[in-house]
Amino acid sequence: MELYGYWRSSASYRARIALNYKQLDYNYIPVHLIKEGGEQHKQAYRQLNPNGLVPTLVNGPVILHQSLAIIEYLEETHPKPSLLPGNAQKRGAIRAIALDIASELQPLINLRVQQYLVRELDADDNAKQAWLAHWFKQSFTALERNLEEVSGQYCVGDDFSLADVCLVPQVYSAERFGIALEDYPLIRTIYQRLLELPWVAAAHPSKQPDAES
Amino acid sequence: MELYGYWRSSASYRARIALNYKQLDYNYIPVHLIKEGGEQHKQAYRQLNPNGLVPTLVNGPVILHQSLAIIEYLEETHPKPSLLPGNAQKRGAIRAIALDIASELQPLINLRVQQYLVRELDADDNAKQAWLAHWFKQSFTALERNLEEVSGQYCVGDDFSLADVCLVPQVYSAERFGIALEDYPLIRTIYQRLLELPWVAAAHPSKQPDAES
Repeated sequence: MELYGYWRSSASYRARIALNYKQLDYNYIPVHLIKEGGEQHKQAYRQLNPNGLVPTLVNGPVILHQSLAIIEYLEETHPKPSLLPGNAQKRGAIRAIALDIASELQPLINLRVQQYLVRELDADDNAKQAWLAHWFKQSFTALERNLEEVSGQYCVGDDFSLADVCLVPQVYSAERFGIALEDYPLIRTIYQRLLELPWVAAAHPSKQPDAES
Repeated sequence: MELYGYWRSSASYRARIALNYKQLDYNYIPVHLIKEGGEQHKQAYRQLNPNGLVPTLVNGPVILHQSLAIIEYLEETHPKPSLLPGNAQKRGAIRAIALDIASELQPLINLRVQQYLVRELDADDNAKQAWLAHWFKQSFTALERNLEEVSGQYCVGDDFSLADVCLVPQVYSAERFGIALEDYPLIRTIYQRLLELPWVAAAHPSKQPDAES
């Protein structure tokens, strides 16, 4: 399998954690999101991924984009160990957290949106930082409340799951953007616990071949 | 089952189509997103849905938010007729389109983001319209190209699927926001075909008890 990604992209980070957890070998092919206006916009890459976003997974004839679609595909083709453990109710709770992060928070803070704010809406550094802080606060406040109900050792009970796969890169982004985390003790505690797991540690942006200092 | 939703919310619209397709009876409980600052922010509703977003599905002890998590739950508990037909590759293509819409486009154009643009970034009507037009163009251009590869009668081949469930409300939103669709012939053709299906027609915002003229 080949994973096209970018070291600091949170969606790429999710895919790496999932592949590692399932002990699947893959070639990591870096797509530089910034250099020369962004390699993701080049024709060759757009043929793999019409959105010009990362990651993309290639597995023989299968070409898949969207990190959660990639991970559901891996779950169906390599079910053990499972990233969606438990019954339908528990799997629902896991997917809800994954989507709270991937469908509510991350789309608002990603690179292309930040670029639009500066380019088209004249956002200065303060306005951009306020935007990031606002959406992190909205999402993390709700997530912390949700975790009070459903978490155990990890986001949903005591089993590692897709919810944890999504949490780690989002807290990494929060730290990168200077978002204060003291109001979210469960998020912080679970994040620290997750970072110790070998399949999570190996997926860290700083460990990737395209990492920059 | 009870579905908390709002007639014009595209995520609620998705859930209604899925419930109808699977012929599941449900009580529809309107949550008015605008009246009195938004019923979704009230304490009673936040206990069901920590994000203060719609929809929420309640099925006995199961309380679920996030439309795609709700639909995956319905798929697992009521697998026939399937919204994820086919093998893992096809299901991947279906989920990728669903997420292109639900995780890339919709989060950028929803009510709370439009409110933030106006309130915090002084966006006037032109700037707000340019924002909407930009993200629709980004997503629909990529989706149209993707559909050239994977569509048949419907978004992915000739089977109705989760991809179609997500397409209908998004094109409805595009029309509502005055987005021109002439550059997207496949999106338009498939959308028109989908509107004829009885389980789609019954889910239309105008048919809901909380619809306003």
